[in-house]
Amino acid sequence: MRPGADSAVTHSGKALILAYDHGLEHGPVDFEDVPASADPETVFDVATHDAVTGFGVQKGLAEAYYPSYENDVTLLAKVNGTSNMWMGEPDSAVNWSVESAADLGAEAIGFTFYGGSNNEVEMAEEFRDAQEAARDRDMGVVMWSYPRGQGLKDDTGGSTIAYASRLGFELGADITKVKYPGSADAMQWACDVAGDTKVVMSGGSKTSDREFLETVETAMSAGASGLAVGRNVFQRENPTELLDALEQVIFEDETADEALGVMSSAESHATTSD
Amino acid sequence: MRPGADSAVTHSGKALILAYDHGLEHGPVDFEDVPASADPETVFDVATHDAVTGFGVQKGLAEAYYPSYENDVTLLAKVNGTSNMWMGEPDSAVNWSVESAADLGAEAIGFTFYGGSNNEVEMAEEFRDAQEAARDRDMGVVMWSYPRGQGLKDDTGGSTIAYASRLGFELGADITKVKYPGSADAMQWACDVAGDTKVVMSGGSKTSDREFLETVETAMSAGASGLAVGRNVFQRENPTELLDALEQVIFEDETADEALGVMSSAESHATTSD
Amino acid sequence: MRPGADSAVTHSGKALILAYDHGLEHGPVDFEDVPASADPETVFDVATHDAVTGFGVQKGLAEAYYPSYENDVTLLAKVNGTSNMWMGEPDSAVNWSVESAADLGAEAIGFTFYGGSNNEVEMAEEFRDAQEAARDRDMGVVMWSYPRGQGLKDDTGGSTIAYASRLGFELGADITKVKYPGSADAMQWACDVAGDTKVVMSGGSKTSDREFLETVETAMSAGASGLAVGRNVFQRENPTELLDALEQVIFEDETADEALGVMSSAESHATTSD
Amino acid sequence: MRPGADSAVTHSGKALILAYDHGLEHGPVDFEDVPASADPETVFDVATHDAVTGFGVQKGLAEAYYPSYENDVTLLAKVNGTSNMWMGEPDSAVNWSVESAADLGAEAIGFTFYGGSNNEVEMAEEFRDAQEAARDRDMGVVMWSYPRGQGLKDDTGGSTIAYASRLGFELGADITKVKYPGSADAMQWACDVAGDTKVVMSGGSKTSDREFLETVETAMSAGASGLAVGRNVFQRENPTELLDALEQVIFEDETADEALGVMSSAESHATTSD
Amino acid sequence: MRPGADSAVTHSGKALILAYDHGLEHGPVDFEDVPASADPETVFDVATHDAVTGFGVQKGLAEAYYPSYENDVTLLAKVNGTSNMWMGEPDSAVNWSVESAADLGAEAIGFTFYGGSNNEVEMAEEFRDAQEAARDRDMGVVMWSYPRGQGLKDDTGGSTIAYASRLGFELGADITKVKYPGSADAMQWACDVAGDTKVVMSGGSKTSDREFLETVETAMSAGASGLAVGRNVFQRENPTELLDALEQVIFEDETADEALGVMSSAESHATTSD
Repeated sequence: MRPGADSAVTHSGKALILAYDHGLEHGPVDFEDVPASADPETVFDVATHDAVTGFGVQKGLAEAYYPSYENDVTLLAKVNGTSNMWMGEPDSAVNWSVESAADLGAEAIGFTFYGGSNNEVEMAEEFRDAQEAARDRDMGVVMWSYPRGQGLKDDTGGSTIAYASRLGFELGADITKVKYPGSADAMQWACDVAGDTKVVMSGGSKTSDREFLETVETAMSAGASGLAVGRNVFQRENPTELLDALEQVIFEDETADEALGVMSSAESHATTSD
Repeated sequence: MRPGADSAVTHSGKALILAYDHGLEHGPVDFEDVPASADPETVFDVATHDAVTGFGVQKGLAEAYYPSYENDVTLLAKVNGTSNMWMGEPDSAVNWSVESAADLGAEAIGFTFYGGSNNEVEMAEEFRDAQEAARDRDMGVVMWSYPRGQGLKDDTGGSTIAYASRLGFELGADITKVKYPGSADAMQWACDVAGDTKVVMSGGSKTSDREFLETVETAMSAGASGLAVGRNVFQRENPTELLDALEQVIFEDETADEALGVMSSAESHATTSD
Repeated sequence: MRPGADSAVTHSGKALILAYDHGLEHGPVDFEDVPASADPETVFDVATHDAVTGFGVQKGLAEAYYPSYENDVTLLAKVNGTSNMWMGEPDSAVNWSVESAADLGAEAIGFTFYGGSNNEVEMAEEFRDAQEAARDRDMGVVMWSYPRGQGLKDDTGGSTIAYASRLGFELGADITKVKYPGSADAMQWACDVAGDTKVVMSGGSKTSDREFLETVETAMSAGASGLAVGRNVFQRENPTELLDALEQVIFEDETADEALGVMSSAESHATTSD
Repeated sequence: MRPGADSAVTHSGKALILAYDHGLEHGPVDFEDVPASADPETVFDVATHDAVTGFGVQKGLAEAYYPSYENDVTLLAKVNGTSNMWMGEPDSAVNWSVESAADLGAEAIGFTFYGGSNNEVEMAEEFRDAQEAARDRDMGVVMWSYPRGQGLKDDTGGSTIAYASRLGFELGADITKVKYPGSADAMQWACDVAGDTKVVMSGGSKTSDREFLETVETAMSAGASGLAVGRNVFQRENPTELLDALEQVIFEDETADEALGVMSSAESHATTSD
Repeated sequence: MRPGADSAVTHSGKALILAYDHGLEHGPVDFEDVPASADPETVFDVATHDAVTGFGVQKGLAEAYYPSYENDVTLLAKVNGTSNMWMGEPDSAVNWSVESAADLGAEAIGFTFYGGSNNEVEMAEEFRDAQEAARDRDMGVVMWSYPRGQGLKDDTGGSTIAYASRLGFELGADITKVKYPGSADAMQWACDVAGDTKVVMSGGSKTSDREFLETVETAMSAGASGLAVGRNVFQRENPTELLDALEQVIFEDETADEALGVMSSAESHATTSD
């Protein structure tokens, strides 16, 4: 990581990254419960929320919608990704050149890295090219560090997640996104070994408001610098409300309990004023 | 997709793309029923029909014939393709550089993408290079999005086709060509998840006039922006007549029934005046 | 193909290409019956025959001998090729850059393409690079189109040869060399589907004068634009005599019978004047 | 090797290289016994010890911490490396371009080379690129020469280690790091066959002070030019003390016994003055 | 081959190339019988012998020692090579760019080519790049043409060696080094099929003085242009003496018998004057 390189996608050193590349990674099935979430405009609107420090999308969505949101959204160019339809060791295609992303106005790049895959070596070299191209353009670098592959038995255990966060640091990410390793201690170790690289928790599959906010609170207390979230926001009927609550936990050091209160008041407010 | 980038190969936002790369993809067997269709001049003549918004051919045909048709045909450079003689996971060779296609006068590129193939990652990176080279030259980008490969059980089911159309959108196509998924609802979902990228239906194997036009009508009602067709045009004795009918359904919002009427009158007319 | 690009290696639209890359493709075993044929000077001398429109050799031979023949021989740079000692799916190495071939004075390139090989995709992309580099230098492009590989049961059947000649056309060759498919009808179909690309018959293994000339006559009547020949010329004791006869069949529209007469008179003449 | 090219990372022709890329190669598990060693600042501080002639780290650590230490630490850019999570023949990713390393201030590069791996050919070509890029920038080249792979039965035997040190020399390293081959004679042969390339002993897993220093003494007597060490320094509670002792053995020609005396006094000193 | 391109590494059209890359190809085991041969200085000194027309070494040795010998040794940069520790089809790494070799003062390049290996296609393309880069710098090109691999049953038979020498010629080598095929006739055929490319005999494993010189004599009579030798020189106690004898056989057309006489007088001389 390069000191300060993350500043474009953090506020006061904290990050709340909204990721919306599920149409590529999982397919439209992720939009079925909330069909409006298939419409990028809906989610770009959500990304204008003040708490969102970066919005991670693939090239196609950025080309089509970012020009209309360039004053309200911070573009994080997710430069690699792939469908889940094929078979074989984990890999990801580099779909977007950093040069093109910069031309469009991206302030940081996002890169998925499958440490432990038999394709790790190739992916690390692709990351090198993207990271150095980002450095040349003063763009931040966010790594989605997800160990997986034939050689890995437990891809969310504490030592795996700590390894994941260290990989981000060693290879030169400014922010590393890792899955929550299941306990505050394990999360703390993952943050401790990451040097000055910021560690953000991956939102994962949709859970209840309380469960989700409590995990975020725990992660923040353990040293995380924020959250990178997708489904837990856009698969909700009212994504903005949850972002209000996350803002409290991530930026205002409030507890999940306090933030849930905000959600309720927000809901009441909404029912009277909308 | 980039707003407006498709304009060179659409009329009023609708597309009727004539594709003629079957000699490469399937071999001369596709010309056997109508031997004249083996002669590019015959098909280039068909492509001068007003309703055709783009004519997709490989480099060799474009080099030989396009210079004589440059005022009457909009060239869509099909930059990849392969024979069906070899074995293994789906793949396609990039046979034409975008630079060379632009020099020849192409206004858009066509690119086959086999999502789900074990070669998907490599193909996506080749698409990236072609797409970005097209952007640099203000050319449109049309993706033939055909999921297939060892990991796919059903390559024309609704969720597969919706994934196919979303892939085109996420990766940066302006127009995505998908197979008809079998029902109006499935086609609508495929269009709904494609953002601002236009979805066109693939013509597929030759069928009866009525069946074909009714499918096109259904697709248009479901949100499709048109059609990319090959065999259903050039394997007919009178391709122009069918194009007349398609023009009605795609650009004039007429029903298949109404358009079939046009075909009959066209035929009567033809029998008296030709 | 690009109109006129073949003119450097055709006379009046017809081609008689002498190929001499057997030392690479088959090894010196091809020279054993006529040891003098191992000496490039012998074969370069043959290539000075007026009827020869292009002489196809690999880089090493061209570097060593072409400078002495540059006024009398038209150099067709055979830019790929490989030995027959290794195992696996058909492939061919690109042994000569087009830039280097052009510097040496080549007027066209020759490229072997194994459609149907599991290496077809890679070979097509190598062909693209060579073809476009040739276009940039106004050099002609001749494809040796030889479908073969694990997926092909019959590599000289009519439909395979028609596919072979169509591949040359679709991918941008000016002249496509195919094996004789066994009948006039099959040869005609192979020529019919090749658009404006010229189709030349491959000479193949050495046969009798009569059999060879009759096949050439048949191919020419079926629409072929000539012949690309190696062993049937240089494995003969008197290659010049056969070239005299081929000249009659290919350029003077004579029959094999008439041409065989020329050979006899040529022989008589030779015995008296030499 | 190029005469003098190693001077940036040697003192009086001797080298004591501190390597700290274990977070990438082994993961945070290497930091568990001494958790402070997970913090790069701790280890960068150690690297300011006068005896350390070069500090080998990956890009991420160098970007984050080297700017604060550039007057006190000599940066040796470890340009390749990989996690131990994946399966297959040994390989290593090139994570850092030499150009970027030079821009950051590195005075030499470090490169792991797995001779004997089925990936040896590819790794040697990557080494070539890195070595020549280093030459262009007057940077030193240190090879971690570790034969391993399916074809190797004994990767620390005398003949293997001698081969390892010869490989460094033949391929152009200025300094080659090899594992200790188990005896003074074997170490001497490994040094004898290395030409003018300097051979340094790899520190390996943590052992007792005495065992470690005695091995270093033996290696130096056998012709080694120093040591490249990681865990045997940073996994100690008091790394500086061991560096004091190593300084005696490597640069002052003292015995392990004498150096252990230094350590005791150092410890006494430490307990009174710290 | 390009006329005259070999002149830098031949005298009067004959070559005696000393090769010393065994430390890479076989490892230090080749130095065990004569340990001094592990020291490049010893062998560089041998290479100053007047009869040696070129000295073939890898980059590391050239960087370290050639600058001290540039007036007395003709540098032949052996640009590829690999260890014998790994498994799989024969291959060789390109360890040295031609540009870097030229900068150091090399007058020719040496390149190992394993025709018949399943890696032949890739190696031929690497040879193309090296050969053309050498042409651009007016450097000679020497091919070590060693057919081997899964598809080859007999890699020193007459037809294999003739194929090997023809491959060097077809692909553009100025000098081709082949193994002795076992008989004068087979050697003559190998020379006959090589066009103007010079064929030199490979020295092979160490044999007796008489046996070795007689084989060289036979090869020269059969048309060879010299010898490329390593172990048969540097594994001898008195390499210079053998070079004196080889000089007689290769450059002075003397018999092995006559040359052996020279060796005896040399030995006598040596015992009195040293």
